[in-house]
Amino acid sequence: MNISDRAQKMPSSPIRKLTPYANAAKERGVKVYHLNIGQPDIQTPAVGLHAMKNVSTNILEYSPSQGYRSLREKLAKYYAEYDIHLTPDEIIVTTGGSEAVLFAFLTCLNPGDEILVTEPSYANYMAFAISVGAVVKSIPTGIENGFALPSMEEFEKLITPRTKALLICNPNNPTGYLYSRQEMEQLSELVKKYDLYLFSDEVYREFIYTDAPYVSAMHLEGIEQNVVLIDSVSKRYSECGIRIGTLVTKNKIVRDSVMKFCQARLSPPKIGQIIAEASIDAPKDYMRRVFIEYKERRDCLIEGLNKIPGVYSPMPLGAFYTVAKLPVKDAEDFCLWCLTDFCYEGETIMMAPCKGFYLTPDVGVDEVRLAYVICKEDIKRALFLLEKALEQYNREKEEKD
Amino acid sequence: MNISDRAQKMPSSPIRKLTPYANAAKERGVKVYHLNIGQPDIQTPAVGLHAMKNVSTNILEYSPSQGYRSLREKLAKYYAEYDIHLTPDEIIVTTGGSEAVLFAFLTCLNPGDEILVTEPSYANYMAFAISVGAVVKSIPTGIENGFALPSMEEFEKLITPRTKALLICNPNNPTGYLYSRQEMEQLSELVKKYDLYLFSDEVYREFIYTDAPYVSAMHLEGIEQNVVLIDSVSKRYSECGIRIGTLVTKNKIVRDSVMKFCQARLSPPKIGQIIAEASIDAPKDYMRRVFIEYKERRDCLIEGLNKIPGVYSPMPLGAFYTVAKLPVKDAEDFCLWCLTDFCYEGETIMMAPCKGFYLTPDVGVDEVRLAYVICKEDIKRALFLLEKALEQYNREKEEKD
Repeated sequence: MNISDRAQKMPSSPIRKLTPYANAAKERGVKVYHLNIGQPDIQTPAVGLHAMKNVSTNILEYSPSQGYRSLREKLAKYYAEYDIHLTPDEIIVTTGGSEAVLFAFLTCLNPGDEILVTEPSYANYMAFAISVGAVVKSIPTGIENGFALPSMEEFEKLITPRTKALLICNPNNPTGYLYSRQEMEQLSELVKKYDLYLFSDEVYREFIYTDAPYVSAMHLEGIEQNVVLIDSVSKRYSECGIRIGTLVTKNKIVRDSVMKFCQARLSPPKIGQIIAEASIDAPKDYMRRVFIEYKERRDCLIEGLNKIPGVYSPMPLGAFYTVAKLPVKDAEDFCLWCLTDFCYEGETIMMAPCKGFYLTPDVGVDEVRLAYVICKEDIKRALFLLEKALEQYNREKEEKD
Repeated sequence: MNISDRAQKMPSSPIRKLTPYANAAKERGVKVYHLNIGQPDIQTPAVGLHAMKNVSTNILEYSPSQGYRSLREKLAKYYAEYDIHLTPDEIIVTTGGSEAVLFAFLTCLNPGDEILVTEPSYANYMAFAISVGAVVKSIPTGIENGFALPSMEEFEKLITPRTKALLICNPNNPTGYLYSRQEMEQLSELVKKYDLYLFSDEVYREFIYTDAPYVSAMHLEGIEQNVVLIDSVSKRYSECGIRIGTLVTKNKIVRDSVMKFCQARLSPPKIGQIIAEASIDAPKDYMRRVFIEYKERRDCLIEGLNKIPGVYSPMPLGAFYTVAKLPVKDAEDFCLWCLTDFCYEGETIMMAPCKGFYLTPDVGVDEVRLAYVICKEDIKRALFLLEKALEQYNREKEEKD
């Protein structure tokens, strides 16, 4: 009896490694400000909760493998508001965006096939690639230019006959970067030139804080058959727990193949679909208030970070994360220390070391990802604690040296 | 751009192939009696529905990747009633039993590794094996002896250095067979002798209609580290749509590895867990009434089937399916014909051809799987229609020949 090679290769997230220490700190009575996770504190739309409480059936039966048609029809209208024009048949409901990534990889990639991904990137892309035996090749982006897209030459250097896909996250987790029209056109050229799939994870489209237009992969002309959109209601309606995502593509052969995997797992969650469908009708005012809340938190967090000596964060254009450089050698060690050794007036902070978002070793070791999913007051307190922690950590380091 | 080899290899279920024809029949106004699917018409326990309607949180946030501890604690008590003694840590909550199968395969099997499965078997095992690159080798069982376990020599003939696991479904879908203690002990010997994993899908344990004891793979002594139990609340509480299953094992290394896949997909459905946890408290009377209902349906169906000239079904010992032999050459053709050409007093029946449950070609081609998930009155009517359909089908065949 063995554990499979892929299970052994699966990364253990550096955030997960910190969790027991955070729990231990809480058990000691320390209050921990969580800047480490993408779990918003924003309320789910009342219409979604109301739909759940008013489910009328007495049998919680399977739903169709592709998801309820009524949900897919409403999603088509939702996408149309973003100038993405789809029929309900072009939308497949998945168990979270996670399953959409898994099914896209299972359908489009053979073991050994390569995907190009910019780094830092969402760590679980790597996990799903390992699950299917695909190989992720990463293209570094840098904090010094706000994590903008590298030149096409950087991509082309990595292209081999096994390269089958590009994967982007836009707006980006963890960097908050939003690709410009020009950058998207560049990616489109690359996709055309090498006949690649373009997997585009756009779950944060609701949260774009700049005047620049949102250019979806679905907007790009001439590569309609290459694009597979990964989406989820988790972040836009603060419904991470219902596990409802979508896989969207104009490519019928891809859809038909994805459906085979959908049928094998029978159906996506029924109650989640009911909640998601109702939430699409969330009042515009709800969406606006959530948007403004995130924007104010972003402004508060970034301004505060850049005031701390030695800390630098670019201004994220979207999503609800930022990557910041800290005046420490090893951010993972610092994040751990904040949970084990640091405590100011009974409080500390938890952040995600960026190491887990980079494939290239020794890159981004002084960076952390901060999620602004806590209220402004808590963000301000967390910033204060971060400054205190950095002072004490570096003083102790100096004393030791 | 290609479709992956595994996507191309994924089987299209013969039931799925019939669905458009059933829909067309319904559009013509024909009433279709569904004996083809495992979707019970039984009501979900009121306590489960009540819990859903009384969810008190206003944020539908992620749950822990291994599932809520409160659910796992209650599941441990549930299993203890079946003499399966577990700590909550030995139970991992999955998105349906389907995900438990997928994660067991991902964790325990490398591409090219072989799993032995008796056939006929649940078709989606094959789909998940293809998803992970594993190879299913099937051991035929036969209707003539009620689909009893073949001798160990039959298993040993197929064992190679790549054989890593046995997979059983007990009570069995599609046959309704229940493995005896002696058969389970034989499997245990095999597992020990060749150091194999034993994946045991026991989602139908609630529905055992014989006096023979339920022998779980978890009861077998000496192979505790080899057993991975696949489970689900779908069938026992008529909650197929909430997508809550479990992967249970005493093997900590397996659990730790499974957890990496769990973490990659973030969490199982939150609302489903709340419903499942409440449903474990379903009154004993609810469980008893459901049990009696299925038992009566089984008796009604099997008695009726064996009265139809040329039809034979063994008496299923558990679950809510039976495999019956029909007096036709090609059951798939007959099932299709029932939907396209047959109609008696505005009604017809839909059954699952057994072809999709066999890997060996040309085996079981005259067999169908019937699920007794409709009420007795409907079962009687469906049996009447089946008899009429067989008469007309064979008369037309004769006339053509």
